[in-house]
Amino acid sequence: MLVAGASGYAGALAADLVWRHPRLELAAATSRGEAGTRLDRLYPRHRVPVELEELDLEQAVGYDAALVAYPHGAAAELVSALRQADMPVVDISADFRLHDLPTYERAYGDHGAPQLLGEAVYGLTELHREPISEAKLVANPGCYPTAALLALAPLAEAGLADDVVISAASGVSGAGRGGGERLAFASVDENFSPYGVDGHRHAPEIVQELGELGSSAPVSFVPHLLPLDQGLLASCYVRLARDVGEGELRSLYEERYTDEPFVELVDEPPGVRDVRDTNLCRVHVSLDGAGRALAFAAIDNLWKGAAGQAIQNLNLMLGLPETEGLG
Amino acid sequence: MLVAGASGYAGALAADLVWRHPRLELAAATSRGEAGTRLDRLYPRHRVPVELEELDLEQAVGYDAALVAYPHGAAAELVSALRQADMPVVDISADFRLHDLPTYERAYGDHGAPQLLGEAVYGLTELHREPISEAKLVANPGCYPTAALLALAPLAEAGLADDVVISAASGVSGAGRGGGERLAFASVDENFSPYGVDGHRHAPEIVQELGELGSSAPVSFVPHLLPLDQGLLASCYVRLARDVGEGELRSLYEERYTDEPFVELVDEPPGVRDVRDTNLCRVHVSLDGAGRALAFAAIDNLWKGAAGQAIQNLNLMLGLPETEGLG
Amino acid sequence: MLVAGASGYAGALAADLVWRHPRLELAAATSRGEAGTRLDRLYPRHRVPVELEELDLEQAVGYDAALVAYPHGAAAELVSALRQADMPVVDISADFRLHDLPTYERAYGDHGAPQLLGEAVYGLTELHREPISEAKLVANPGCYPTAALLALAPLAEAGLADDVVISAASGVSGAGRGGGERLAFASVDENFSPYGVDGHRHAPEIVQELGELGSSAPVSFVPHLLPLDQGLLASCYVRLARDVGEGELRSLYEERYTDEPFVELVDEPPGVRDVRDTNLCRVHVSLDGAGRALAFAAIDNLWKGAAGQAIQNLNLMLGLPETEGLG
Amino acid sequence: MLVAGASGYAGALAADLVWRHPRLELAAATSRGEAGTRLDRLYPRHRVPVELEELDLEQAVGYDAALVAYPHGAAAELVSALRQADMPVVDISADFRLHDLPTYERAYGDHGAPQLLGEAVYGLTELHREPISEAKLVANPGCYPTAALLALAPLAEAGLADDVVISAASGVSGAGRGGGERLAFASVDENFSPYGVDGHRHAPEIVQELGELGSSAPVSFVPHLLPLDQGLLASCYVRLARDVGEGELRSLYEERYTDEPFVELVDEPPGVRDVRDTNLCRVHVSLDGAGRALAFAAIDNLWKGAAGQAIQNLNLMLGLPETEGLG
Repeated sequence: MLVAGASGYAGALAADLVWRHPRLELAAATSRGEAGTRLDRLYPRHRVPVELEELDLEQAVGYDAALVAYPHGAAAELVSALRQADMPVVDISADFRLHDLPTYERAYGDHGAPQLLGEAVYGLTELHREPISEAKLVANPGCYPTAALLALAPLAEAGLADDVVISAASGVSGAGRGGGERLAFASVDENFSPYGVDGHRHAPEIVQELGELGSSAPVSFVPHLLPLDQGLLASCYVRLARDVGEGELRSLYEERYTDEPFVELVDEPPGVRDVRDTNLCRVHVSLDGAGRALAFAAIDNLWKGAAGQAIQNLNLMLGLPETEGLG
Repeated sequence: MLVAGASGYAGALAADLVWRHPRLELAAATSRGEAGTRLDRLYPRHRVPVELEELDLEQAVGYDAALVAYPHGAAAELVSALRQADMPVVDISADFRLHDLPTYERAYGDHGAPQLLGEAVYGLTELHREPISEAKLVANPGCYPTAALLALAPLAEAGLADDVVISAASGVSGAGRGGGERLAFASVDENFSPYGVDGHRHAPEIVQELGELGSSAPVSFVPHLLPLDQGLLASCYVRLARDVGEGELRSLYEERYTDEPFVELVDEPPGVRDVRDTNLCRVHVSLDGAGRALAFAAIDNLWKGAAGQAIQNLNLMLGLPETEGLG
Repeated sequence: MLVAGASGYAGALAADLVWRHPRLELAAATSRGEAGTRLDRLYPRHRVPVELEELDLEQAVGYDAALVAYPHGAAAELVSALRQADMPVVDISADFRLHDLPTYERAYGDHGAPQLLGEAVYGLTELHREPISEAKLVANPGCYPTAALLALAPLAEAGLADDVVISAASGVSGAGRGGGERLAFASVDENFSPYGVDGHRHAPEIVQELGELGSSAPVSFVPHLLPLDQGLLASCYVRLARDVGEGELRSLYEERYTDEPFVELVDEPPGVRDVRDTNLCRVHVSLDGAGRALAFAAIDNLWKGAAGQAIQNLNLMLGLPETEGLG
Repeated sequence: MLVAGASGYAGALAADLVWRHPRLELAAATSRGEAGTRLDRLYPRHRVPVELEELDLEQAVGYDAALVAYPHGAAAELVSALRQADMPVVDISADFRLHDLPTYERAYGDHGAPQLLGEAVYGLTELHREPISEAKLVANPGCYPTAALLALAPLAEAGLADDVVISAASGVSGAGRGGGERLAFASVDENFSPYGVDGHRHAPEIVQELGELGSSAPVSFVPHLLPLDQGLLASCYVRLARDVGEGELRSLYEERYTDEPFVELVDEPPGVRDVRDTNLCRVHVSLDGAGRALAFAAIDNLWKGAAGQAIQNLNLMLGLPETEGLG
């Protein structure tokens, strides 16, 4: 296994998960900016005693598969090269999440490998398990879409979601390393604020996938920054297409998620602390007095929202048990 | 001035604000559980060198006015006694916020002085300045309704709010002292979770006041608990009655709040840190791609959400400048 | 394996570590106050789908070994009963840490099983590996002594520690569940303060073990409470018996710890975040301008400071590899 | 009043304190990097509606006095220019704290105005009140020395301090704005670590001032970084020159500080939260079992540790009541 871009939060966790995976081997962990540094110096908790390398493409294409954790825009070129050598790739960046090129360009700018958009499978495992298991290129979802879509999928699939508000919040690790003054302790501590109100890049991803589930509901989505490290909560408020009772609502979710190893339906609204450092998504659903369905989903943005789900997808692509290495 | 219930967070801050107020005198600060303790022992930062007393009703009715910061349900009786002596009272509890007795009883149980419900004025200063200035009994609003209503009022008054979602979040001081395991550091730290999803007591307050502004929009309201001490954000998502441009929307808010000393319209979504330890409410409004108005309001839940607004109201009732002692 | 007292922080982690241990089986997890509750309800992150039981002593003595995580004072009786049935026991409480009964009684009050004091081996693995591997009763060390002693042992063993100051700090989980207003979020958040300045119970433990290493240096020890969950740092300032160069000092530590699987000597002063959720102790040593040795040790108070070290000891007692189940 | 360097944390608070000061006027607030920005945009909580200016030296020398909050090394030149115009100056930087030029140069490098070192008075108000009130140039102390010296002064003055360990900890605002990855939320959150163990710049300041009080005790000083914003605790462990009883020890401190408006002797070890946003220093002293005096001092590093003390000193220099504007 190649993990490319292993010096960022998601890439480093991906390298750690591969390192500890009973069936995978971490052949190389590369970094564009920190080659020569040992991973366990950068991330002592991960304890991966492996030196980051410069990417050597010739060597890279000899590995069995790759996880690419480059920034958005930078991933496409590498993914394209790896795919030319027919390597299975999970791309953690946003570069292949959106099927529609103009939508991508509006959100992210030029695309480095648009010819691959048709090949890429959107990697929200619980929604696309079959195609993922046959895919050679999986576009790992954004952290917000992962939580929001798992909260909304049963309603969308049942044709019940008429109008959707997603008020979401994430810890700072979701923004990646660095971040300057906006992510300085003195800015985040004892603070809570919305951001991206003029259109967060994850919104089109949510709309695309709800559409695939059959829902063309208008979606309002606002993320907020939490004074914590790892954790993401999506609070979804859904106007329903028809009257639904509390019992029917819960049954809908129970049936949908009963066999999902990483989705837990819980009786109480979930807190992000309960899923920290796990690949779990905890979902709670209820009706409110105004007739709306309230659906909440909590994940660890670095696990189910990034590297954990990447391993989950990789397991499927390689024919391994889906939960392997994620216990 | 009497401050009754000065050992809780809101009461202690009220006592502090009276103590430092250039035109008021803190004649007595009472506590049911901690009489005999000096306030600056309980709350060193407030530096109020005053001993908490048992309430002596006979003496109490001799003061010019009273701030009552008892828990919900416990306030009504004391307020009733003070009003019989014709004292001006600001009640920080929920006991007189709801005009409709059955609504109160559903949310809080029996009412100890229902005969006063008609007399009480709802103390969201920016909405009811005139009646407050002539009132003898002001029911200080809840912290969530304060932020939500200031975010929503311009839309409601203009007849534009058709459908309302309020996703709000507060620091732990909003829950008062104590709180047991739910408010233990180990439960709150690195956590974020919704609560009260089956109907928070502040919801009827919001509905009542939107109604007074002419809006009968359905309201979904969910509060969340933040890992911080003081601060509250209301994120409001509003389906509008007609197409409104960004410019019209902003003008509406600018005109509404231009003369308000404690409401600041800001260009960026507000963070709670920026209003900590102030009586400010910072409001931001915009339109999103789904055609909804997004209105955000940030306050310090103990200041504008409780004790600060109580002083603001008291100033009006006593004919003092509204901002006195709140600089 | 029996884990008794599995509803507290240390006991729950011990149950989790047993649950995930490749060579141990969690036969029963008991709780005096929360029998009937599933462990993964109390501690979702641990994901142990086991129901807490009332302790059934008759059944208990049938298991191969026991971890006892009762509060101080309450453990002795149970440990005594288990030992009568000749079960190997690791006691996480303080009940068997002090060899001297009067010292115990001054710190903790009456002792429930003083006859076992002579049998118990002090379970700081790195100091007493051999006796632990032959012991039937191991007294797991306190969290502060674990870090302090690992920071000081090389100096004490070399006869170099003449005078010792230990300024230490721990996150709130070190105080166990509950804790009332002192451990409320509103008390701990944005705070830092010393406590136990008139004599913390862990001081005699440190003095006893330094004595066993040959040092009778006077010890000043003050713990502080940190606004975080898991993590403990011991900062030790040591007046040396003779002039020692920086090189000699580092060699001393390198030689002492080179084969220790859970002690990492690091070049930079360690932070508690880097060892969170691991059984590691990171140690750094240097000389300062005043001629003192500065020795710092960082651990996770629940892991190496409690449950992790308990498993480490248990592995030794059962003849398993010391690191098994602690990766 | 000129406040130069008002865009940093200390300078901005200084500008705010001058702005709200009943006897001072904020004539100009300057910034080298953010001229043109309004202060209340950078620091909304301060609410100072003043635009930051480029420094105009010709204009500056027309003001009555100046507070200089430039970084170390950058202040000397400006201070020199202001002093040539005979303006009273409080310099918040380290440039004039050390009387000995070689000591300064070892810690900070070249000095821009060494001719002024003799003129500058060390501005720990409680130690040098008289000289400060007659000084034209006051060197405001560092935050760590302020707390450490207030904890130690009574012992040093009484000739009792024989050997001193200072284990101190500060919130991140002590490091100023910016700070890069070291002060990123993801680095500080849930962390605690020592730094500057090879010699922090504040150590010579502490040694110098203890020397002025008559103590040549060796001093070990290690600072630590706390996961909070404002607050600093100095925990001092002092080997005494002779046997001293608890009563004598407390009397010593009581007598020394009884008339100090900003030093509070407290019965319990102080927490930094209790002095946040105040100019207070809370001190607690006791004896431990090893015969050492334990002296703790808690301050807000931005107030008593920087801008608050600067105003305290300025009040003295201008003949105003010392506490004016610091209530």
